[in-house]
Parts: sequence; structure tokens; C-alpha cells
Amino acid sequence: MPAEAWAGWADTIGSLAALLTTVSFVPQAWLTWRTRDVSGISLGMYSVFTTGVALWLVYGLLLGAWPIVAANTVTLALALSILLMRIRYGGTTHANTPRSHDTTG
Amino acid sequence: MPAEAWAGWADTIGSLAALLTTVSFVPQAWLTWRTRDVSGISLGMYSVFTTGVALWLVYGLLLGAWPIVAANTVTLALALSILLMRIRYGGTTHANTPRSHDTTG
Repeated sequence: MPAEAWAGWADTIGSLAALLTTVSFVPQAWLTWRTRDVSGISLGMYSVFTTGVALWLVYGLLLGAWPIVAANTVTLALALSILLMRIRYGGTTHANTPRSHDTTG
Repeated sequence: MPAEAWAGWADTIGSLAALLTTVSFVPQAWLTWRTRDVSGISLGMYSVFTTGVALWLVYGLLLGAWPIVAANTVTLALALSILLMRIRYGGTTHANTPRSHDTTG
């Protein structure tokens, strides 16, 4: 197909991309809720990621871009829940220390 | 400020949002690389998220939107590295089973 024909797929691919990156946090939130196991989860990642998603939400509101608002509202709720569970079940310091020093496998 | 003045901040806020959600995966990739601890990390999340980011990259290429291409190239590399470590260090099945049944805290 010529470039113009591919461009027609852009909206579909973008929508699918937004759907996948949004719903991807459901299995992580569910796993963490179910197991309370946060030992391998980075506090730094979820702190920075949640802040970033909140800014995406502000960006969408400023532009009146409702697909951005909707996707990031859902992602914010999921990321925030993971962040709060990470803090509650893992603490805020040294929770990521390996449980033993022979984890070479 | 009136709505128009806030809208002038949109590009700045959007750029900061993209920067944060992209670099947020650095501490997770580094933590996982350093500790090999993937017990709390959801295979489902990283499978779906990595696929979604790859589609964001395709979307950016179709539109010739280079900020989207750049941000998602970096995120794809980071998310894919976490996914591969999750598979390598945790296996693909039952790796997320709690280590004991008394993790009620």
C-alpha cells in the first residue's frame, strides 16, 4: 500500500495502542492486590510514572482532548493504586534489597 | 488566568508528561537488572504494555510525529528489556504465586 493508505490506519492503530497501554496496568494492579508481593516493583518507577500520567491528564484537559482525558484517568487510577500498594506493602526505603545474595539464577 | 492563558502551557505540560512517563521505566529496568527480583512483576502487564508501546511507535511513524516516535522508541526499549528479564528470571507460568500462604499483612 502507498503511504496514504497506511495513514488511514493511523487512527485505528493509535486507538488500539491507547487501549493496550491503558489496560496493561489491570493485571499488575490485580496481581499486587492479590499477592501483596511488591518486592520487585520499583517505587521510583511508579512515583515518576503516576506524576507523568497526571500531567497527561492535565494536558488533555487543557486541550479539551477527551480521548486523552479518558485514557489517562483510567491509567492514573490504576498506577496510583499500584503506587499506594507499593508504599503500603513495601515501605518507602530499601524494600527492593534482594532477599539473599545468591540470586544469580 | 483565563482558559486561553492556561492553554499556552499545554505544550510544556505535555512535553514534561512525555518525559516523565518515558524515563519512569529506567528505575524499574535498573532495579530488575540489579536484583533479578521479578516475583511481584506482572507478565501480563509487560506483555500488553510492550505491545501497546510498539503500536504507539507505528502510529507515530504513520503520522510522521517524531516526538511520539522518539518517546516510544525509548519506552519500547525499556519495557522490552523488563519483559525479557521477567521471562528469563521468572518464567512464563505461576511465577507470581505468593511464596507463602500467610502473606496477609
